[in-house]
Amino acid sequence: MSASWIDGVAWNADGLVPAVAQDAKSGEVLMLAWMNREALAKTAETGEAVYWSRSRRSLWKKGETSGHVQRVVEIRLDCDADTVLLRVESVAGIACHTGRRRCFFNRLEGAGDERRWVQTDPVLADPSTFRDG
Amino acid sequence: MSASWIDGVAWNADGLVPAVAQDAKSGEVLMLAWMNREALAKTAETGEAVYWSRSRRSLWKKGETSGHVQRVVEIRLDCDADTVLLRVESVAGIACHTGRRRCFFNRLEGAGDERRWVQTDPVLADPSTFRDG
Repeated sequence: MSASWIDGVAWNADGLVPAVAQDAKSGEVLMLAWMNREALAKTAETGEAVYWSRSRRSLWKKGETSGHVQRVVEIRLDCDADTVLLRVESVAGIACHTGRRRCFFNRLEGAGDERRWVQTDPVLADPSTFRDG
Repeated sequence: MSASWIDGVAWNADGLVPAVAQDAKSGEVLMLAWMNREALAKTAETGEAVYWSRSRRSLWKKGETSGHVQRVVEIRLDCDADTVLLRVESVAGIACHTGRRRCFFNRLEGAGDERRWVQTDPVLADPSTFRDG
């Protein structure tokens, strides 16, 4: 955990950085979650995405209960070293805890006062059967 | 600014959300920046990306000095309503303040103690000629 590449990350005041997960094949942006040092180290070591759950205040191995594991193809860091990009294989094709392919299923539609968020993606798995997306 | 679609966003304690910008054509993830209510409202109204600069504590019209404007193709919101995804046309083909196509130009390479961040993308524009990426 004292590895210099981890020290190269600009952790925020809470010791976290946002991590964007992108489907390596389709290019689709799947989700944004957070990582602490341990989550990033485990992600690099195991080759499967591990995040930090801010609500549960614990490490969160993606797919632990759902099987919706993310195999890591590539880990990238941005110019300010304060955001991680994971290019992943979304093993079950589901990244969202709602049972959808991706978390970004709300699209802004309309104009002016008529703008509203419209859900665009189908639910592919029953979210009552897993806890962690 | 009291529009209900903006109230549908789960602004954090600082009144911000992260916004991921993705190239609408190539699918490449370009950058992550932050938005407040005004930035998101202006982005929707003008069809060009406006962010909130946390360092300057001011609205930041992307490309204002550089010309590296991002035309917004689509605005999406995630399942928890706390992250925005912009699909954009990156007008000049440069999103990063370092003059690169995207901000995620550092790739983690190697294994174990040999891991390190390696820069992978060329600098396409002289960053001394603009302030805002």
